[in-house]
Amino acid sequence: MTVHTIHVFKNVLAGNDEVAARNRVRFNEAGVLAINVIASPGAGKTSLIVRTLAALRDRTNIGVIEGDIAGSIDAEKVLACGARSAIQINTSGGCHLEAGMVQQALDALDLQQLDIVFIENVGNLVCPAHWALGEQIRLCLSSTAEGHDKPIKYPDVFAGSDAIVLNKIDLIDLVDFDRAAFYESVRALNRQAPIIEVSCRSAAGFALWIDWLLAQRAALRIDMHETVR
Amino acid sequence: MTVHTIHVFKNVLAGNDEVAARNRVRFNEAGVLAINVIASPGAGKTSLIVRTLAALRDRTNIGVIEGDIAGSIDAEKVLACGARSAIQINTSGGCHLEAGMVQQALDALDLQQLDIVFIENVGNLVCPAHWALGEQIRLCLSSTAEGHDKPIKYPDVFAGSDAIVLNKIDLIDLVDFDRAAFYESVRALNRQAPIIEVSCRSAAGFALWIDWLLAQRAALRIDMHETVR
Repeated sequence: MTVHTIHVFKNVLAGNDEVAARNRVRFNEAGVLAINVIASPGAGKTSLIVRTLAALRDRTNIGVIEGDIAGSIDAEKVLACGARSAIQINTSGGCHLEAGMVQQALDALDLQQLDIVFIENVGNLVCPAHWALGEQIRLCLSSTAEGHDKPIKYPDVFAGSDAIVLNKIDLIDLVDFDRAAFYESVRALNRQAPIIEVSCRSAAGFALWIDWLLAQRAALRIDMHETVR
Repeated sequence: MTVHTIHVFKNVLAGNDEVAARNRVRFNEAGVLAINVIASPGAGKTSLIVRTLAALRDRTNIGVIEGDIAGSIDAEKVLACGARSAIQINTSGGCHLEAGMVQQALDALDLQQLDIVFIENVGNLVCPAHWALGEQIRLCLSSTAEGHDKPIKYPDVFAGSDAIVLNKIDLIDLVDFDRAAFYESVRALNRQAPIIEVSCRSAAGFALWIDWLLAQRAALRIDMHETVR
């Protein structure tokens, strides 16, 4: 299977929020849970998706939209790890995905074949926080190796996320990470979002993450049935 | 000592490269080595500066310009750790420093009192790579915990840097970091920049980093004398 790559050019994208709203309608109508994964470079976005694929590939059809400045190594990796389909978006230096890019990706994805779509944003804790893509779930992925002060220094993404995954929990005792300070600073910004601790390396915490993810997917289906009735 | 904070507003900054060139003249004329530190959130920018202050505070006057979206905790920290002076720039959501922001900071710094100025950019591997600030040294700081594939995924900053510091070397055996792959991908982008391995936590590699830093400062002084003659 080859990777479909979209090269994005500037100024073709207008009215981001309107396009995002249309993307969300497409996800909802297809019964697909879309998750916008936002994180620093190296926090473990691709690893979270790969480990989730390993857990769910036999029972859930997962598509991935990969946002990168250049290259398609992540799209190739998730396809090799069991993604049903993968679209690579190259932003040509751009520091975040925009709704119009995801719209183009959706034109190339068969949503009827999918249950969940991960949208892996460009590695950046700043700019992606300001651009809705049409996702139902905005996920902020942070890692213990980055330090416990990230919510204070990059508040917008923590404030605006529906869930927070704290990765590299296996390293927590090696990196002077103050768990209480992290929770306190997240809660000062966001009282609702669950904080799920995992290690994509050791799989610690993954049962909880998978349960939470499937519950979100199930809730989406229930909402759809209620809408139909 | 209180922290001087600059709040930056958009559209007051034009002609970034011209302003950067003027900043560089100011650094050169004062004999100050200015280092623009670019890295992902949590790679260890502040830790590198704090550890360097600990090594040099008794013999070198170091100033710090801190770029953050919000807050002044880093400026307060470096002052407490021995920085001669510190200026906090708040970008109000902006994802990178620009030369005009540094120009404002220079108006508030007494360069004649300083030997080295660290400019800690906003934590972001993408956008800061495109904005000259007037520094003589652009430093890309990467950490083993981010993974060895960062040069491939964020090529511009690795290609455009004068030196690369690989931090968290104490974690290298715990995070599946492929050192040979990292070096190979850096060298494909940048044949010149030294790659200096350190741990800001354990101080491994720090003697080499300090020697390199002081050599850059000495070279600047030699250049100045030659210019005067």
